[in-house]
Amino acid sequence: MSDINTNWQQPAFNIVRCGHIELVVTDLARSRAFYVDTLGFVVTEESADVIYLRAYEERQHHSLKLRQGSKAMIGHIGYKVWSEAHLDALAAHFVALGCQTQWVNGVEAGQGRALRVRDPLGFNTEFYYDMRNVEWMMQQFHLYRGPHILRIDHFNLHVPDVAAGYEYYRQLGFRCSEYAVADPPEVGLWAAWMYRKPGVHDVALTNGYGPRLHHVAFWLPESAAISRCCDILAAAGYKDSIERGPGRHGLSNAFFLYVRDPDGHRIEFYTNDYYTGDPDFEPVRWVLSDPKRATFWGSYAPRSWFEESSVVTDGENGTMPLTAPKFAPKPVAVN
Amino acid sequence: MSDINTNWQQPAFNIVRCGHIELVVTDLARSRAFYVDTLGFVVTEESADVIYLRAYEERQHHSLKLRQGSKAMIGHIGYKVWSEAHLDALAAHFVALGCQTQWVNGVEAGQGRALRVRDPLGFNTEFYYDMRNVEWMMQQFHLYRGPHILRIDHFNLHVPDVAAGYEYYRQLGFRCSEYAVADPPEVGLWAAWMYRKPGVHDVALTNGYGPRLHHVAFWLPESAAISRCCDILAAAGYKDSIERGPGRHGLSNAFFLYVRDPDGHRIEFYTNDYYTGDPDFEPVRWVLSDPKRATFWGSYAPRSWFEESSVVTDGENGTMPLTAPKFAPKPVAVN
Amino acid sequence: MSDINTNWQQPAFNIVRCGHIELVVTDLARSRAFYVDTLGFVVTEESADVIYLRAYEERQHHSLKLRQGSKAMIGHIGYKVWSEAHLDALAAHFVALGCQTQWVNGVEAGQGRALRVRDPLGFNTEFYYDMRNVEWMMQQFHLYRGPHILRIDHFNLHVPDVAAGYEYYRQLGFRCSEYAVADPPEVGLWAAWMYRKPGVHDVALTNGYGPRLHHVAFWLPESAAISRCCDILAAAGYKDSIERGPGRHGLSNAFFLYVRDPDGHRIEFYTNDYYTGDPDFEPVRWVLSDPKRATFWGSYAPRSWFEESSVVTDGENGTMPLTAPKFAPKPVAVN
Amino acid sequence: MSDINTNWQQPAFNIVRCGHIELVVTDLARSRAFYVDTLGFVVTEESADVIYLRAYEERQHHSLKLRQGSKAMIGHIGYKVWSEAHLDALAAHFVALGCQTQWVNGVEAGQGRALRVRDPLGFNTEFYYDMRNVEWMMQQFHLYRGPHILRIDHFNLHVPDVAAGYEYYRQLGFRCSEYAVADPPEVGLWAAWMYRKPGVHDVALTNGYGPRLHHVAFWLPESAAISRCCDILAAAGYKDSIERGPGRHGLSNAFFLYVRDPDGHRIEFYTNDYYTGDPDFEPVRWVLSDPKRATFWGSYAPRSWFEESSVVTDGENGTMPLTAPKFAPKPVAVN
Repeated sequence: MSDINTNWQQPAFNIVRCGHIELVVTDLARSRAFYVDTLGFVVTEESADVIYLRAYEERQHHSLKLRQGSKAMIGHIGYKVWSEAHLDALAAHFVALGCQTQWVNGVEAGQGRALRVRDPLGFNTEFYYDMRNVEWMMQQFHLYRGPHILRIDHFNLHVPDVAAGYEYYRQLGFRCSEYAVADPPEVGLWAAWMYRKPGVHDVALTNGYGPRLHHVAFWLPESAAISRCCDILAAAGYKDSIERGPGRHGLSNAFFLYVRDPDGHRIEFYTNDYYTGDPDFEPVRWVLSDPKRATFWGSYAPRSWFEESSVVTDGENGTMPLTAPKFAPKPVAVN
Repeated sequence: MSDINTNWQQPAFNIVRCGHIELVVTDLARSRAFYVDTLGFVVTEESADVIYLRAYEERQHHSLKLRQGSKAMIGHIGYKVWSEAHLDALAAHFVALGCQTQWVNGVEAGQGRALRVRDPLGFNTEFYYDMRNVEWMMQQFHLYRGPHILRIDHFNLHVPDVAAGYEYYRQLGFRCSEYAVADPPEVGLWAAWMYRKPGVHDVALTNGYGPRLHHVAFWLPESAAISRCCDILAAAGYKDSIERGPGRHGLSNAFFLYVRDPDGHRIEFYTNDYYTGDPDFEPVRWVLSDPKRATFWGSYAPRSWFEESSVVTDGENGTMPLTAPKFAPKPVAVN
Repeated sequence: MSDINTNWQQPAFNIVRCGHIELVVTDLARSRAFYVDTLGFVVTEESADVIYLRAYEERQHHSLKLRQGSKAMIGHIGYKVWSEAHLDALAAHFVALGCQTQWVNGVEAGQGRALRVRDPLGFNTEFYYDMRNVEWMMQQFHLYRGPHILRIDHFNLHVPDVAAGYEYYRQLGFRCSEYAVADPPEVGLWAAWMYRKPGVHDVALTNGYGPRLHHVAFWLPESAAISRCCDILAAAGYKDSIERGPGRHGLSNAFFLYVRDPDGHRIEFYTNDYYTGDPDFEPVRWVLSDPKRATFWGSYAPRSWFEESSVVTDGENGTMPLTAPKFAPKPVAVN
Repeated sequence: MSDINTNWQQPAFNIVRCGHIELVVTDLARSRAFYVDTLGFVVTEESADVIYLRAYEERQHHSLKLRQGSKAMIGHIGYKVWSEAHLDALAAHFVALGCQTQWVNGVEAGQGRALRVRDPLGFNTEFYYDMRNVEWMMQQFHLYRGPHILRIDHFNLHVPDVAAGYEYYRQLGFRCSEYAVADPPEVGLWAAWMYRKPGVHDVALTNGYGPRLHHVAFWLPESAAISRCCDILAAAGYKDSIERGPGRHGLSNAFFLYVRDPDGHRIEFYTNDYYTGDPDFEPVRWVLSDPKRATFWGSYAPRSWFEESSVVTDGENGTMPLTAPKFAPKPVAVN
């Protein structure tokens, strides 16, 4: 796979970046206390059933949508696209793939026409160009609250077949920054980190029961802000929400923290990965058994981090059925 | 002066630390917007005329008192003392010095008996043991606002004769961490940093028209918090309040920022000085002309920093007359 | 200009990012002490006359080349390009512009075929695809020295006519993140920040005697690293190299520091700007007289910062003649 | 115990602070690679068998002494005392306690007369006034290496009977900042944090097989330096040395990291505790079962942290026999 990026071709459309996510939550007021009052997300717009949130650096209407529902799950994940014309090209691509597609317009506040597809991995995925710019809070430092969350960074998805998921995203124009192979390596691809904007990823695919969302990540300005996030959460009574970290990833080099929201959705706070935009960027290869891969410092993740993830809506009232992963889940080492 | 600390003797009383300051301000609401809404000081108690504030690490009732008045000036500076008995010993000391003394009790909210003196340097100085403990905010991280001000650290006083001021504070049991001599050095003592708690100072004395308060300093947790203070002040419309810094002091090694409150009172935000509590701590000697003394990085201070300071109340409706300093003020170099 | 980015078209080539710079220095050993011993740049390769340096995050052979010469000047600035074919397209573009072009191959260590042009702004500009990957130091944290410089970020160029320079770079596919207009605004464009990678800039153009390089910037991980840079420089005897900062830019929102190398070449240390990669990113407009533009905190720059810049080689033994700027230099306010 | 500090009396001697520790190590070269090459301790003096180290802020000859031996153990712990006369008063105190005492002079490089006692808790404890000042590295920022260790902060000792240990240190003039009681609380004192300098502690006593040293702690400037310590250790091949953290202690509020040296001696890196010097400082009381006590964020410590500690020399060739603790060790919860 070392030639993955040099052999890469731009498709007929340009997906710009990971854009927003819709989380279905079971108690909207409780989620508001977590995301807004404690973590400091900015409310762009809200109603009885929905809250649209953004982080301090973001100019567009929302990167995080919370929707009241009867079951905690992922509504959809959204990618920003270069132009309206590219949306049409994407629609053609998905029709050719045999995927179910749907055009929506104004279904989300602040957003125009969007393409929704049930992607081959089972996720409800949205592509959009048109989202309204709103007030930029970036230099309103006196209004910052919480640990200073700046912008959405990436999605991490559990899929049963990472090699297939990798190929799907490669055809969407994603490049690969890092990947992990099972041990012994001939077994196959265990995980892949793929990007459109030139950081480590807009989406990561990891072997597991899928489709599920392992986490959505937000960018913070520096490592100390991530440590401060723990202080804030613990002081506010969310000690048990802190699941893993803070620490340094071997993979991505990022400083990280994983927390669980009141419904168990996993959020990563993330900073200081690196630039990947060179055409001859050679992906970094890891072997699954390397202890520095997950945490550069060698610390273990708790069992929940390996086993629990958010299921995704089936578009009706239920959730997508899960498929067992190609590789048995890694046995969890606890210390 | 290199034997100053080894020859030091504990007097019959134990002054513990710089404790609180009373600032007279001309528009209390305007000062509240600055200190509370923007800088995040915690309000312990307030009335139409007075606001008692504390910082996040402080357990006692107040370290900063704002009092409405018709003229901006310093009401008093206050030192915490080891016991009630030590207050009596201090009273005897000041009577022997021929100073005017006064016992007050309950004049300040949260505070019991206190000794107020017009000290030989002309300052209205208070000594107290009894101040009420209030709710400790230190681990209420979710309630922190502003740049995270933790505790009062020191006073910096302009006095006409630093050698005399030094001798006065030495008799109060203060030790010396660093001092600056005029250049050529035989001219005399230009400034002295003196401490009771084992940091660099509880009080600094610098050559200038006196009695005036150059600044009162508060401790922050780390250098990045001090930089963040600039972001917050500028965003909140207090850009012109930022007078000097951030920077690293040569003297004290502390990371610093000087700001001016709406009445022109100067506040220093300060962190990362060093431990001075060893009995054989040898004071650091600086020559006034050393450019690294004031700012280790060599940057210049603005003219206002050298020339403007807060006058002090005369206990009636006026302010204490100023005496010209022993040494002509240093010519100000601007870049 | 608010539609600058939405009207933008990708040309027939893809310039990826600001890549490297060649500084001609008059005492290579003295420059090595500054860049390597003090600032911690990693030496990839060196000879009696040339040192090739990279920063900790960089995988390619060099981002900073120091060359011994008799006069301090800029050798060339280099942009990384997407492919060899794009180099050919760029050559055609410059021929059409009537610019002098030259193919070199192996002239720089670690680098293959490259296109050198005398660009319309008078700079010696190189475009290259082929540069060798070398050992990645990013996670060799135990070997980090100095303030932890991570990667090259941008060039800042003085040009006599910013509007013309803007048009030149726009045709190269650069987009605009922020710009400043003279005051009154009808006078014209004073400065523009233009990018290929989705940060604030790969190149900035500012009104001034040109062609000159105002500075080259390197990225650091966080604001505290930039403050630490001052500590290190001052301790190592380079106090006078610190020219401006640290501070927060209004424009770009970055935390910054400007230093001068032993030949007077200006280096910016820079971190925490923001993401600009959305297709509908609307450039930020500043008026030159806004005091928050340069430093969000309102502090002034020294006169040298406005007046001194590095001249550029004429490709022979001399330097390019300077053209007076369209607008008279801004009068310098000092505090 | 809430009146512990207000009832406190200064004895006839003044112990100033935790001063230095002697670690017996089994491979001095291996320990040098860890402490000097990786962590950046400054070598004051060394020979084939002994290395004397200090941290960047320290002016005295050493705070950490490594001595080659055949078995890993603690040589002695040392407290700095106010004067030579106080040493004599201490000697009288220990004779009255029936402890074995010994005067040494020049046994340690850089140090004069010192009193060594086998204290009632079984530790080989040294008291000294006379230690030579050496070059101060504090502002030699260009020479800092490693995570920037500044000064020794405290010892943490395992003792079988904390109440007895507490009384012993109280008679030495130590005050109490925080303490933990077993659950239910009537069972007794589980741990106590005691100080002479006005931070949280110079010594902590915790219930366990004793005499053993749980850890010696060093102060770093800020939380990010502690995270950086993990990066450095992992990069240098000491991943397995990272035992616990980084995290925020509930008790002491400090940001912390525990590492194990090549012999298993435990070092804590520590910063940002708080000021305790007020005479009416009321100790903070914790119940052992409170999960925020150890780590404010609620994370668990590994089993080794609870079970492994350094034994202490018996002054001959062996180590002190261990006594079982009054309370059974807390069952270890792992996640």
